[in-house]
Amino acid sequence: MILINGKPEQTLSCLDRGLQYGDGLFETIALRNGKLQNWSLHWQRLTIGCERLYLPFPEEEKILDDIGQVTSGVESAVVKILYTRGVGGRGYAFSEVTPTRIIMQFPLPKYPDTNSNEGVNLYLCKTRLAHQPLLAGLKHLNRLENVLARNEWDDTKYAEGLLCCTKGSVIEGTMSNIFMVKNKMLYTPELSQCGVRGVTRTRIIQLAEENKMKVVEDNLSLDDLWQADEIFICNSIIRIWPVKNIADFNFSTSPNLNPVTRQLQHLIN
Amino acid sequence: MILINGKPEQTLSCLDRGLQYGDGLFETIALRNGKLQNWSLHWQRLTIGCERLYLPFPEEEKILDDIGQVTSGVESAVVKILYTRGVGGRGYAFSEVTPTRIIMQFPLPKYPDTNSNEGVNLYLCKTRLAHQPLLAGLKHLNRLENVLARNEWDDTKYAEGLLCCTKGSVIEGTMSNIFMVKNKMLYTPELSQCGVRGVTRTRIIQLAEENKMKVVEDNLSLDDLWQADEIFICNSIIRIWPVKNIADFNFSTSPNLNPVTRQLQHLIN
Repeated sequence: MILINGKPEQTLSCLDRGLQYGDGLFETIALRNGKLQNWSLHWQRLTIGCERLYLPFPEEEKILDDIGQVTSGVESAVVKILYTRGVGGRGYAFSEVTPTRIIMQFPLPKYPDTNSNEGVNLYLCKTRLAHQPLLAGLKHLNRLENVLARNEWDDTKYAEGLLCCTKGSVIEGTMSNIFMVKNKMLYTPELSQCGVRGVTRTRIIQLAEENKMKVVEDNLSLDDLWQADEIFICNSIIRIWPVKNIADFNFSTSPNLNPVTRQLQHLIN
Repeated sequence: MILINGKPEQTLSCLDRGLQYGDGLFETIALRNGKLQNWSLHWQRLTIGCERLYLPFPEEEKILDDIGQVTSGVESAVVKILYTRGVGGRGYAFSEVTPTRIIMQFPLPKYPDTNSNEGVNLYLCKTRLAHQPLLAGLKHLNRLENVLARNEWDDTKYAEGLLCCTKGSVIEGTMSNIFMVKNKMLYTPELSQCGVRGVTRTRIIQLAEENKMKVVEDNLSLDDLWQADEIFICNSIIRIWPVKNIADFNFSTSPNLNPVTRQLQHLIN
Protein backbone atom coordinates (compact mmCIF):
# COMPACT_ATOMS: atom_id res chain seq x y z
CA MET A 1 0.00 0.00 0.00
CA ILE A 2 1.26 3.44 -0.94
CA LEU A 3 0.05 6.91 0.05
CA ILE A 4 1.18 9.99 -1.86
CA ASN A 5 0.44 13.20 0.04
CA GLY A 6 -2.04 11.20 2.10
CA LYS A 7 -3.95 9.71 -0.84
CA PRO A 8 -3.80 6.11 -2.06
CA GLU A 9 -1.84 6.33 -5.33
CA GLN A 10 0.73 4.19 -7.09
CA THR A 11 2.16 6.81 -9.44
CA LEU A 12 3.51 10.33 -9.31
CA SER A 13 4.15 13.07 -11.84
CA CYS A 14 7.23 12.41 -13.90
CA LEU A 15 8.00 16.12 -13.47
CA ASP A 16 8.61 15.50 -9.75
CA ARG A 17 12.07 16.71 -8.81
CA GLY A 18 12.60 13.46 -6.94
CA LEU A 19 12.77 11.75 -10.33
CA GLN A 20 14.28 14.61 -12.35
CA TYR A 21 17.21 15.28 -10.01
CA GLY A 22 17.03 12.87 -7.08
CA ASP A 23 15.99 16.00 -5.19
CA GLY A 24 14.76 14.52 -1.92
CA LEU A 25 15.30 12.22 1.03
CA PHE A 26 14.13 8.85 2.27
CA GLU A 27 13.85 6.79 5.44
CA THR A 28 13.54 3.03 5.82
CA ILE A 29 11.91 2.11 9.12
CA ALA A 30 11.14 -1.24 10.70
CA LEU A 31 7.72 -2.01 12.14
CA ARG A 32 7.94 -4.87 14.65
CA ASN A 33 5.17 -6.24 16.87
CA GLY A 34 2.98 -3.49 15.47
CA LYS A 35 5.39 -0.83 16.73
CA LEU A 36 7.44 1.61 14.66
CA GLN A 37 11.11 1.26 15.69
CA ASN A 38 13.27 4.27 16.52
CA TRP A 39 10.82 6.79 15.11
CA SER A 40 12.36 9.78 16.86
CA LEU A 41 15.78 9.02 15.36
CA HIS A 42 14.32 8.62 11.86
CA TRP A 43 12.38 11.85 12.25
CA GLN A 44 15.52 13.61 13.47
CA ARG A 45 17.56 12.49 10.46
CA LEU A 46 14.77 13.45 8.06
CA THR A 47 14.57 16.96 9.48
CA ILE A 48 18.36 17.36 9.46
CA GLY A 49 18.23 16.34 5.79
CA CYS A 50 15.50 18.92 5.15
CA GLU A 51 17.65 21.63 6.72
CA ARG A 52 20.70 20.66 4.69
CA LEU A 53 18.73 20.53 1.40
CA TYR A 54 16.60 23.62 2.20
CA LEU A 55 13.41 21.56 2.09
CA PRO A 56 10.45 22.69 4.19
CA PHE A 57 9.89 20.28 7.09
CA PRO A 58 7.05 17.82 6.57
CA GLU A 59 4.33 17.68 9.24
CA GLU A 60 5.25 14.88 11.61
CA GLU A 61 1.61 14.22 12.46
CA LYS A 62 0.66 13.74 8.80
CA ILE A 63 3.52 11.35 8.22
CA LEU A 64 2.60 9.34 11.31
CA ASP A 65 -1.06 9.31 10.20
CA ASP A 66 -0.03 8.01 6.79
CA ILE A 67 2.18 5.36 8.37
CA GLY A 68 -0.70 4.36 10.64
CA GLN A 69 -2.88 3.87 7.58
CA VAL A 70 -0.43 1.84 5.49
CA THR A 71 0.44 -0.40 8.45
CA SER A 72 -3.07 -0.79 9.83
CA GLY A 73 -3.46 -4.37 11.10
CA VAL A 74 0.13 -5.20 10.19
CA GLU A 75 2.49 -6.66 12.79
CA SER A 76 5.79 -6.37 10.97
CA ALA A 77 6.78 -4.41 7.89
CA VAL A 78 9.30 -2.10 6.29
CA VAL A 79 7.96 1.44 6.05
CA LYS A 80 9.67 3.63 3.50
CA ILE A 81 9.21 7.38 3.47
CA LEU A 82 10.19 9.27 0.34
CA TYR A 83 10.13 13.03 0.68
CA THR A 84 10.90 15.03 -2.46
CA ARG A 85 10.91 18.72 -3.35
CA GLY A 86 7.86 18.05 -5.54
CA VAL A 87 7.02 19.43 -8.97
CA GLY A 88 8.30 22.80 -10.04
CA GLY A 89 11.10 25.28 -10.13
CA ARG A 90 13.01 26.30 -13.26
CA GLY A 91 15.66 23.73 -14.00
CA TYR A 92 17.76 23.20 -10.90
CA ALA A 93 16.33 26.34 -9.20
CA PHE A 94 13.60 25.50 -6.73
CA SER A 95 11.85 28.54 -5.30
CA GLU A 96 8.21 27.96 -4.29
CA VAL A 97 7.62 24.28 -4.69
CA THR A 98 5.39 21.96 -2.66
CA PRO A 99 7.12 18.80 -1.44
CA THR A 100 5.75 15.34 -2.17
CA ARG A 101 5.53 12.83 0.65
CA ILE A 102 5.25 9.17 -0.26
CA ILE A 103 4.67 6.51 2.37
CA MET A 104 5.15 2.89 1.35
CA GLN A 105 4.79 -0.39 3.16
CA PHE A 106 6.65 -3.57 2.21
CA PRO A 107 6.97 -6.96 3.91
CA LEU A 108 9.89 -7.20 6.31
CA PRO A 109 12.47 -9.33 4.45
CA LYS A 110 13.38 -12.70 5.99
CA TYR A 111 17.10 -13.31 6.32
CA PRO A 112 18.67 -16.61 7.43
CA ASP A 113 19.07 -16.84 11.22
CA THR A 114 22.71 -17.72 10.58
CA ASN A 115 23.31 -14.09 9.54
CA SER A 116 22.62 -12.93 13.09
CA ASN A 117 24.03 -15.98 14.83
CA GLU A 118 27.10 -17.00 12.90
CA GLY A 119 27.76 -13.84 10.98
CA VAL A 120 28.11 -12.89 7.33
CA ASN A 121 30.77 -12.48 4.65
CA LEU A 122 31.43 -9.05 3.18
CA TYR A 123 32.49 -8.42 -0.38
CA LEU A 124 35.08 -5.64 -0.70
CA CYS A 125 33.67 -3.20 -3.28
CA LYS A 126 35.88 -1.51 -5.86
CA THR A 127 33.44 1.41 -6.06
CA ARG A 128 34.72 4.22 -3.86
CA LEU A 129 32.53 6.84 -2.20
CA ALA A 130 33.23 10.44 -3.23
CA HIS A 131 33.87 13.15 -0.62
CA GLN A 132 30.91 15.51 -0.58
CA PRO A 133 30.50 17.11 2.85
CA LEU A 134 27.29 18.88 1.77
CA LEU A 135 25.52 15.54 1.39
CA ALA A 136 27.48 13.33 3.80
CA GLY A 137 25.39 11.61 6.47
CA LEU A 138 22.07 12.23 4.69
CA LYS A 139 19.78 9.53 3.33
CA HIS A 140 19.16 11.40 0.09
CA LEU A 141 17.89 10.11 -3.24
CA ASN A 142 21.24 10.32 -5.10
CA ARG A 143 22.22 6.70 -4.66
CA LEU A 144 24.06 5.73 -7.84
CA GLU A 145 27.25 4.98 -5.90
CA ASN A 146 25.35 2.41 -3.82
CA VAL A 147 23.68 0.95 -6.92
CA LEU A 148 27.04 0.52 -8.66
CA ALA A 149 28.66 -0.91 -5.54
CA ARG A 150 25.86 -3.38 -4.83
CA ASN A 151 26.05 -4.71 -8.34
CA GLU A 152 29.71 -5.61 -8.24
CA TRP A 153 28.86 -9.02 -6.82
CA ASP A 154 26.02 -11.50 -7.22
CA ASP A 155 27.53 -14.42 -5.33
CA THR A 156 25.02 -15.05 -2.54
CA LYS A 157 27.83 -16.02 -0.17
CA TYR A 158 28.31 -12.27 0.37
CA ALA A 159 25.48 -10.75 2.39
CA GLU A 160 26.80 -7.21 2.00
CA GLY A 161 29.60 -5.18 0.39
CA LEU A 162 32.08 -2.97 2.20
CA LEU A 163 32.69 0.53 0.81
CA CYS A 164 35.77 2.68 1.21
CA CYS A 165 36.01 6.33 0.16
CA THR A 166 38.15 7.68 -2.67
CA LYS A 167 40.91 8.28 -0.12
CA GLY A 168 40.80 4.65 1.00
CA SER A 169 39.15 4.95 4.42
CA VAL A 170 36.49 2.44 5.42
CA ILE A 171 33.05 4.12 5.39
CA GLU A 172 30.07 1.72 5.43
CA GLY A 173 28.28 -1.15 3.74
CA THR A 174 26.15 -0.57 0.64
CA MET A 175 23.03 -0.65 2.86
CA SER A 176 24.50 -0.71 6.37
CA ASN A 177 26.96 0.91 8.75
CA ILE A 178 29.98 -0.85 10.18
CA PHE A 179 31.50 -1.05 13.67
CA MET A 180 34.60 -2.73 14.98
CA VAL A 181 35.58 -3.66 18.53
CA LYS A 182 39.18 -3.43 19.68
CA ASN A 183 40.25 -3.84 23.32
CA LYS A 184 36.57 -3.53 24.36
CA MET A 185 36.22 -0.15 22.67
CA LEU A 186 33.75 0.44 19.86
CA TYR A 187 34.93 2.17 16.66
CA THR A 188 32.88 3.33 13.69
CA PRO A 189 33.89 5.49 10.69
CA GLU A 190 33.27 9.19 11.02
CA LEU A 191 30.91 10.34 8.25
CA SER A 192 31.71 14.00 7.62
CA GLN A 193 32.73 13.42 3.98
CA CYS A 194 30.53 10.56 2.78
CA GLY A 195 28.27 7.75 3.94
CA VAL A 196 24.83 7.63 5.53
CA ARG A 197 24.42 8.30 9.24
CA GLY A 198 22.28 5.24 9.95
CA VAL A 199 19.63 5.36 12.65
CA THR A 200 20.76 1.99 14.00
CA ARG A 201 24.34 3.29 14.06
CA THR A 202 23.14 6.21 16.22
CA ARG A 203 21.10 3.84 18.41
CA ILE A 204 24.11 1.55 18.93
CA ILE A 205 26.27 4.52 19.94
CA GLN A 206 23.59 5.53 22.47
CA LEU A 207 23.22 1.99 23.84
CA ALA A 208 26.98 1.54 24.12
CA GLU A 209 27.38 4.79 26.02
CA GLU A 210 24.46 3.96 28.32
CA ASN A 211 26.33 0.74 29.07
CA LYS A 212 29.62 2.49 29.82
CA MET A 213 31.26 1.34 26.62
CA LYS A 214 33.58 3.82 24.97
CA VAL A 215 32.70 4.72 21.35
CA VAL A 216 35.08 6.42 18.93
CA GLU A 217 33.96 7.89 15.60
CA ASP A 218 37.11 8.23 13.58
CA ASN A 219 38.92 7.60 10.34
CA LEU A 220 39.27 3.80 9.99
CA SER A 221 41.48 1.96 7.53
CA LEU A 222 41.18 -1.57 6.21
CA ASP A 223 44.29 -2.32 8.29
CA ASP A 224 42.39 -1.26 11.39
CA LEU A 225 39.65 -3.73 10.46
CA TRP A 226 42.13 -6.57 9.94
CA GLN A 227 43.26 -6.05 13.53
CA ALA A 228 39.80 -5.83 15.06
CA ASP A 229 38.62 -8.19 17.80
CA GLU A 230 35.05 -8.05 16.44
CA ILE A 231 33.31 -6.48 13.45
CA PHE A 232 29.61 -6.07 12.82
CA ILE A 233 27.28 -4.28 10.41
CA CYS A 234 23.89 -2.80 11.20
CA ASN A 235 20.78 -1.17 9.80
CA SER A 236 17.14 -0.76 10.79
CA ILE A 237 16.01 -3.89 9.00
CA ILE A 238 18.84 -6.36 9.70
CA ARG A 239 19.71 -4.82 13.08
CA ILE A 240 23.14 -6.32 13.89
CA TRP A 241 25.02 -8.98 11.93
CA PRO A 242 28.49 -10.11 13.04
CA VAL A 243 31.04 -10.12 10.23
CA LYS A 244 33.02 -13.30 9.92
CA ASN A 245 34.88 -12.64 6.68
CA ILE A 246 35.84 -9.64 4.54
CA ALA A 247 37.24 -10.38 1.09
CA ASP A 248 38.59 -13.78 2.20
CA PHE A 249 40.08 -12.42 5.40
CA ASN A 250 38.56 -14.47 8.23
CA PHE A 251 37.45 -13.28 11.62
CA SER A 252 36.47 -16.11 13.90
CA THR A 253 32.92 -15.66 15.17
CA SER A 254 30.88 -17.89 17.40
CA PRO A 255 28.26 -17.32 20.07
CA ASN A 256 31.09 -17.51 22.61
CA LEU A 257 33.34 -15.11 20.79
CA ASN A 258 32.28 -11.56 19.84
CA PRO A 259 31.00 -10.74 23.33
CA VAL A 260 30.47 -7.04 22.57
CA THR A 261 28.52 -7.77 19.38
CA ARG A 262 26.38 -10.28 21.31
CA GLN A 263 25.73 -7.80 24.07
CA LEU A 264 24.67 -5.10 21.59
CA GLN A 265 22.45 -7.57 19.70
CA HIS A 266 20.79 -8.37 23.00
CA LEU A 267 20.37 -4.69 23.92
CA ILE A 268 18.97 -3.62 20.55
CA ASN A 269 16.39 -6.39 20.12
CA MET B 1 3.24 16.28 -24.00
CA ILE B 2 4.89 13.28 -22.36
CA LEU B 3 5.32 9.70 -23.52
CA ILE B 4 6.31 6.95 -21.10
CA ASN B 5 7.48 3.81 -22.88
CA GLY B 6 5.72 5.15 -25.97
CA LYS B 7 2.35 5.81 -24.32
CA PRO B 8 0.88 9.21 -23.42
CA GLU B 9 1.17 9.34 -19.63
CA GLN B 10 1.92 12.00 -17.05
CA THR B 11 2.83 9.77 -14.14
CA LEU B 12 5.05 6.82 -13.39
CA SER B 13 5.27 4.19 -10.66
CA CYS B 14 6.75 5.59 -7.50
CA LEU B 15 8.68 2.31 -7.27
CA ASP B 16 10.68 3.32 -10.36
CA ARG B 17 14.39 3.26 -9.55
CA GLY B 18 14.73 6.64 -11.23
CA LEU B 19 12.85 8.07 -8.25
CA GLN B 20 14.04 5.65 -5.57
CA TYR B 21 17.77 6.02 -6.29
CA GLY B 22 18.23 8.49 -9.17
CA ASP B 23 19.11 5.33 -11.08
CA GLY B 24 19.09 6.61 -14.65
CA LEU B 25 20.20 9.15 -17.21
CA PHE B 26 18.79 12.12 -19.07
CA GLU B 27 19.36 14.21 -22.17
CA THR B 28 18.17 17.74 -22.92
CA ILE B 29 18.00 18.37 -26.65
CA ALA B 30 17.08 21.45 -28.65
CA LEU B 31 14.61 21.27 -31.53
CA ARG B 32 15.09 24.26 -33.86
CA ASN B 33 13.33 24.89 -37.18
CA GLY B 34 11.67 21.54 -36.71
CA LYS B 35 15.03 19.79 -36.55
CA LEU B 36 16.56 17.93 -33.62
CA GLN B 37 20.01 19.40 -32.94
CA ASN B 38 23.10 17.22 -32.50
CA TRP B 39 21.13 14.00 -32.14
CA SER B 40 24.09 11.73 -32.81
CA LEU B 41 26.10 13.34 -29.99
CA HIS B 42 23.16 13.06 -27.56
CA TRP B 43 22.64 9.44 -28.54
CA GLN B 44 26.34 8.75 -28.11
CA ARG B 45 26.41 10.22 -24.59
CA LEU B 46 23.25 8.32 -23.63
CA THR B 47 24.75 5.01 -24.73
CA ILE B 48 28.06 5.75 -22.98
CA GLY B 49 26.01 6.42 -19.84
CA CYS B 50 24.18 3.11 -20.30
CA GLU B 51 27.47 1.27 -20.56
CA ARG B 52 28.87 2.93 -17.46
CA LEU B 53 25.69 2.25 -15.42
CA TYR B 54 25.15 -1.26 -16.85
CA LEU B 55 21.81 -0.23 -18.32
CA PRO B 56 20.58 -2.02 -21.44
CA PHE B 57 20.68 0.32 -24.45
CA PRO B 58 17.33 1.80 -25.43
CA GLU B 59 16.19 1.31 -29.02
CA GLU B 60 17.23 4.41 -30.93
CA GLU B 61 14.33 4.03 -33.36
CA LYS B 62 11.74 3.95 -30.57
CA ILE B 63 13.21 7.05 -28.94
CA LEU B 64 13.22 8.90 -32.26
CA ASP B 65 9.62 7.79 -32.91
CA ASP B 66 8.59 9.10 -29.48
CA ILE B 67 10.40 12.38 -30.09
CA GLY B 68 8.69 12.66 -33.49
CA GLN B 69 5.32 12.26 -31.77
CA VAL B 70 5.87 14.77 -28.95
CA THR B 71 7.27 17.38 -31.36
CA SER B 72 4.81 16.80 -34.20
CA GLY B 73 4.00 20.20 -35.77
CA VAL B 74 6.38 21.98 -33.40
CA GLU B 75 9.12 24.23 -34.77
CA SER B 76 11.19 24.79 -31.66
CA ALA B 77 11.22 23.00 -28.33
CA VAL B 78 13.29 21.43 -25.60
CA VAL B 79 13.09 17.64 -25.74
CA LYS B 80 14.04 15.88 -22.54
CA ILE B 81 14.73 12.15 -22.45
CA LEU B 82 14.72 10.43 -19.08
CA TYR B 83 15.91 6.84 -19.14
CA THR B 84 15.74 4.94 -15.86
CA ARG B 85 16.42 1.37 -14.80
CA GLY B 86 12.67 0.98 -14.25
CA VAL B 87 10.84 -0.83 -11.48
CA GLY B 88 12.43 -3.76 -9.72
CA GLY B 89 15.46 -5.32 -8.20
CA ARG B 90 15.99 -5.95 -4.49
CA GLY B 91 17.15 -2.76 -2.82
CA TYR B 92 20.17 -1.44 -4.69
CA ALA B 93 20.62 -4.72 -6.61
CA PHE B 94 19.16 -4.54 -10.10
CA SER B 95 19.20 -7.87 -11.94
CA GLU B 96 16.41 -8.30 -14.51
CA VAL B 97 14.67 -4.97 -14.68
CA THR B 98 13.00 -3.27 -17.65
CA PRO B 99 14.10 0.32 -18.19
CA THR B 100 11.61 3.17 -18.39
CA ARG B 101 11.95 5.71 -21.19
CA ILE B 102 10.25 9.05 -20.76
CA ILE B 103 10.15 11.59 -23.56
CA MET B 104 9.04 15.12 -22.69
CA GLN B 105 8.59 18.27 -24.71
CA PHE B 106 8.82 21.77 -23.26
CA PRO B 107 8.85 25.22 -24.86
CA LEU B 108 12.33 26.47 -25.71
CA PRO B 109 13.05 29.12 -23.07
CA LYS B 110 13.51 32.70 -24.27
CA TYR B 111 16.65 34.39 -22.95
CA PRO B 112 17.50 38.08 -23.47
CA ASP B 113 19.47 38.68 -26.68
CA THR B 114 22.01 40.52 -24.56
CA ASN B 115 23.10 37.16 -23.09
CA SER B 116 24.44 36.10 -26.48
CA ASN B 117 25.52 39.55 -27.62
CA GLU B 118 26.97 41.30 -24.61
CA GLY B 119 27.58 38.33 -22.38
CA VAL B 120 26.52 37.27 -18.90
CA ASN B 121 27.67 37.47 -15.29
CA LEU B 122 28.58 34.30 -13.43
CA TYR B 123 28.07 33.75 -9.75
CA LEU B 124 30.92 31.83 -8.10
CA CYS B 125 29.30 28.91 -6.25
CA LYS B 126 30.50 27.78 -2.85
CA THR B 127 29.21 24.26 -3.54
CA ARG B 128 32.10 22.11 -4.74
CA LEU B 129 31.75 19.09 -7.00
CA ALA B 130 32.94 15.78 -5.51
CA HIS B 131 35.43 13.59 -7.36
CA GLN B 132 33.64 10.46 -8.55
CA PRO B 133 35.30 9.07 -11.68
CA LEU B 134 32.63 6.35 -12.03
CA LEU B 135 29.98 8.99 -12.72
CA ALA B 136 32.06 11.85 -14.15
CA GLY B 137 30.97 13.06 -17.57
CA LEU B 138 27.57 11.38 -17.43
CA LYS B 139 24.24 13.19 -17.44
CA HIS B 140 22.82 11.00 -14.69
CA LEU B 141 19.87 11.62 -12.39
CA ASN B 142 21.93 12.27 -9.22
CA ARG B 143 21.90 16.04 -9.43
CA LEU B 144 21.74 17.28 -5.85
CA GLU B 145 25.08 19.07 -6.19
CA ASN B 146 23.68 21.11 -9.07
CA VAL B 147 20.44 21.79 -7.18
CA LEU B 148 22.37 23.06 -4.14
CA ALA B 149 24.72 25.12 -6.30
CA ARG B 150 21.95 26.71 -8.37
CA ASN B 151 20.15 27.78 -5.26
CA GLU B 152 23.04 29.72 -3.76
CA TRP B 153 21.94 32.83 -5.66
CA ASP B 154 18.65 34.35 -6.74
CA ASP B 155 19.92 37.70 -7.97
CA THR B 156 18.85 37.77 -11.63
CA LYS B 157 22.00 39.66 -12.54
CA TYR B 158 23.75 36.25 -12.55
CA ALA B 159 22.70 34.11 -15.51
CA GLU B 160 24.68 31.11 -14.31
CA GLY B 161 26.91 29.87 -11.49
CA LEU B 162 30.46 28.61 -11.84
CA LEU B 163 31.38 25.37 -10.08
CA CYS B 164 34.79 24.24 -8.89
CA CYS B 165 35.59 20.76 -7.59
CA THR B 166 36.52 19.90 -4.00
CA LYS B 167 40.18 20.32 -4.99
CA GLY B 168 39.53 23.83 -6.31
CA SER B 169 39.75 23.29 -10.07
CA VAL B 170 37.22 24.97 -12.35
CA ILE B 171 34.78 22.37 -13.72
CA GLU B 172 31.59 23.78 -15.27
CA GLY B 173 28.48 25.89 -14.77
CA THR B 174 25.45 24.50 -12.92
CA MET B 175 23.79 23.81 -16.31
CA SER B 176 26.58 24.54 -18.78
CA ASN B 177 30.20 23.88 -19.69
CA ILE B 178 32.88 26.54 -19.73
CA PHE B 179 35.67 27.40 -22.17
CA MET B 180 38.40 30.01 -22.09
CA VAL B 181 40.53 31.43 -24.87
CA LYS B 182 44.17 32.34 -24.26
CA ASN B 183 46.57 33.28 -27.07
CA LYS B 184 44.03 32.01 -29.62
CA MET B 185 43.97 28.56 -28.02
CA LEU B 186 40.78 27.09 -26.59
CA TYR B 187 40.85 25.55 -23.07
CA THR B 188 38.13 23.65 -21.27
CA PRO B 189 38.26 21.68 -17.99
CA GLU B 190 38.98 17.99 -18.28
CA LEU B 191 36.09 16.01 -16.79
CA SER B 192 37.55 12.71 -15.61
CA GLN B 193 36.61 13.31 -11.96
CA CYS B 194 33.37 15.30 -12.07
CA GLY B 195 31.15 17.39 -14.31
CA VAL B 196 28.93 16.63 -17.28
CA ARG B 197 30.43 16.12 -20.72
CA GLY B 198 28.04 18.47 -22.53
CA VAL B 199 27.05 17.77 -26.10
CA THR B 200 27.63 21.40 -27.05
CA ARG B 201 31.06 21.22 -25.42
CA THR B 202 31.85 18.23 -27.66
CA ARG B 203 30.42 20.05 -30.71
CA ILE B 204 32.54 23.13 -29.99
CA ILE B 205 35.68 21.02 -29.70
CA GLN B 206 34.84 19.44 -33.09
CA LEU B 207 34.12 22.82 -34.71
CA ALA B 208 37.29 24.35 -33.32
CA GLU B 209 39.43 21.49 -34.59
CA GLU B 210 37.74 21.60 -38.01
CA ASN B 211 38.72 25.26 -38.08
CA LYS B 212 42.35 24.62 -37.15
CA MET B 213 41.98 25.97 -33.64
CA LYS B 214 43.93 24.16 -30.95
CA VAL B 215 41.82 22.80 -28.08
CA VAL B 216 43.23 21.70 -24.72
CA GLU B 217 41.21 19.74 -22.15
CA ASP B 218 43.09 20.21 -18.91
CA ASN B 219 42.98 21.11 -15.27
CA LEU B 220 42.00 24.81 -15.07
CA SER B 221 42.24 27.05 -12.02
CA LEU B 222 40.35 30.24 -11.24
CA ASP B 223 43.70 32.01 -11.76
CA ASP B 224 43.79 30.65 -15.30
CA LEU B 225 40.34 32.13 -15.87
CA TRP B 226 41.39 35.55 -14.51
CA GLN B 227 44.09 35.62 -17.16
CA ALA B 228 41.91 34.50 -20.06
CA ASP B 229 41.46 36.58 -23.18
CA GLU B 230 37.88 35.33 -23.56
CA ILE B 231 35.52 33.12 -21.58
CA PHE B 232 32.23 31.60 -22.63
CA ILE B 233 29.71 29.05 -21.39
CA CYS B 234 27.62 26.69 -23.50
CA ASN B 235 24.84 24.14 -23.53
CA SER B 236 22.33 22.73 -26.00
CA ILE B 237 19.67 25.29 -25.15
CA ILE B 238 21.65 28.53 -24.69
CA ARG B 239 24.34 27.52 -27.20
CA ILE B 240 27.17 30.02 -26.49
CA TRP B 241 27.10 32.97 -24.10
CA PRO B 242 30.20 35.12 -23.62
CA VAL B 243 31.09 35.68 -19.97
CA LYS B 244 31.70 39.30 -19.04
CA ASN B 245 32.02 38.97 -15.29
CA ILE B 246 32.74 36.24 -12.73
CA ALA B 247 32.17 37.12 -9.07
CA ASP B 248 32.84 40.83 -9.69
CA PHE B 249 35.91 40.19 -11.81
CA ASN B 250 35.29 41.89 -15.16
CA PHE B 251 36.23 40.68 -18.59
CA SER B 252 35.64 43.24 -21.28
CA THR B 253 33.33 41.85 -23.96
CA SER B 254 31.95 43.56 -27.01
CA PRO B 255 31.10 42.43 -30.53
CA ASN B 256 34.57 43.62 -31.51
CA LEU B 257 36.36 41.85 -28.72
CA ASN B 258 36.05 38.10 -28.11
CA PRO B 259 36.77 37.18 -31.71
CA VAL B 260 37.04 33.45 -31.00
CA THR B 261 33.76 33.36 -29.10
CA ARG B 262 32.07 35.27 -31.94
CA GLN B 263 33.48 32.90 -34.52
CA LEU B 264 32.26 29.84 -32.58
CA GLN B 265 28.83 31.42 -32.07
CA HIS B 266 28.67 31.92 -35.82
CA LEU B 267 29.79 28.36 -36.55
CA ILE B 268 27.42 26.70 -34.11
CA ASN B 269 24.24 28.56 -35.07
